[in-house]
Amino acid sequence: MKIITISREFGSGGRELGKRLSDVLGFDYYDKEIITGIAKNTGMDEKYLDQMLDTHGWRNIPMMYHHSFAGMAMPVNQTEIMMEQKNVIEQIAKAGKDCIIVGRNADILLEEYHPFTMFVCADMESKIKRCLERAPEGENHTPKEMERKIHQIDKNRARTREIISDSEWGAASSYNITVNTSGWEIKELVPSVAAFAQCWFEHTQK
Amino acid sequence: MKIITISREFGSGGRELGKRLSDVLGFDYYDKEIITGIAKNTGMDEKYLDQMLDTHGWRNIPMMYHHSFAGMAMPVNQTEIMMEQKNVIEQIAKAGKDCIIVGRNADILLEEYHPFTMFVCADMESKIKRCLERAPEGENHTPKEMERKIHQIDKNRARTREIISDSEWGAASSYNITVNTSGWEIKELVPSVAAFAQCWFEHTQK
Repeated sequence: MKIITISREFGSGGRELGKRLSDVLGFDYYDKEIITGIAKNTGMDEKYLDQMLDTHGWRNIPMMYHHSFAGMAMPVNQTEIMMEQKNVIEQIAKAGKDCIIVGRNADILLEEYHPFTMFVCADMESKIKRCLERAPEGENHTPKEMERKIHQIDKNRARTREIISDSEWGAASSYNITVNTSGWEIKELVPSVAAFAQCWFEHTQK
Repeated sequence: MKIITISREFGSGGRELGKRLSDVLGFDYYDKEIITGIAKNTGMDEKYLDQMLDTHGWRNIPMMYHHSFAGMAMPVNQTEIMMEQKNVIEQIAKAGKDCIIVGRNADILLEEYHPFTMFVCADMESKIKRCLERAPEGENHTPKEMERKIHQIDKNRARTREIISDSEWGAASSYNITVNTSGWEIKELVPSVAAFAQCWFEHTQK
């Protein structure tokens, strides 16, 4: 089984790279699907969960309630959500199919499966440009506001990783390769990354 | 013409990766050859020049003397050496042959040629291990001493880059890809990197 994990700076195009890579390689793709899994297992609202995990970071998720089978409101704390996320990611690995998992510290959680671990970055200018172009309707951030948002989300990602690992979020020595998307269309980079990954699995399986 | 530049942390195996890559791809390889070129053009001693550039960094090269055609001692300052290095690297590019250039900020100096730029890193433990295994006879550093040496050399590399560029030495967003060699034999990584580079030149030439 081959697992590729993609960690990424917000706005770097890591998600698009993962999706396109999964198409080229014929791997399963997991991203928001993990949230769906957690929502299903906990009974929590998917959209709320997504927003909480992405925007507020682990330490800052307020106490949440979900509905038990019996319809009773039950408190869910941060640790339980993280544990559930871990469960969902481990279930994906245990299914034994080649897959790409974007975000959620899957590289750490699945260390024993020896995933090919990738980090995707870009310079701030490229990230702001990308985020503004792809902003959902109604969101009208200035470039400066977008920069703050990018910093905030990445800070939370770094903090969440810190809790479960010694390896630093975003440091090149924490991943097998780091790809810089600055100045490129993601689709231009896909063949190179796919070629690297394919060779990686052929030549480095220990 | 295809140019690959490799910047690297001391002890990461970047030089070996470059050499092996040049064998696989059939590219010319430039590393110490650049020093030979400078020595030839300035009349300075090659070994001394190498040591000065590698160990002391740009700011700290003491005033040096070379012998003019007439046999007179002539002062050579740091800027002149850097200019000569720039000349030698530009001559390599102008020759128009596919090549790999290791170190010496070739990625910055040859920006207009759109090189594929790579950074090679590793965690400190791997770098110390590698350096100790490859230490020349008579050099008996303790791991702690080797760590200091690695820090010192990399600090000088970072400083030298700072002088000629805004892009930060070692930051993943300063290069197209960053490869982490920790825990791997360099030869295991060569096929993946070669595949990436080949695809890169096929798909991203603008």
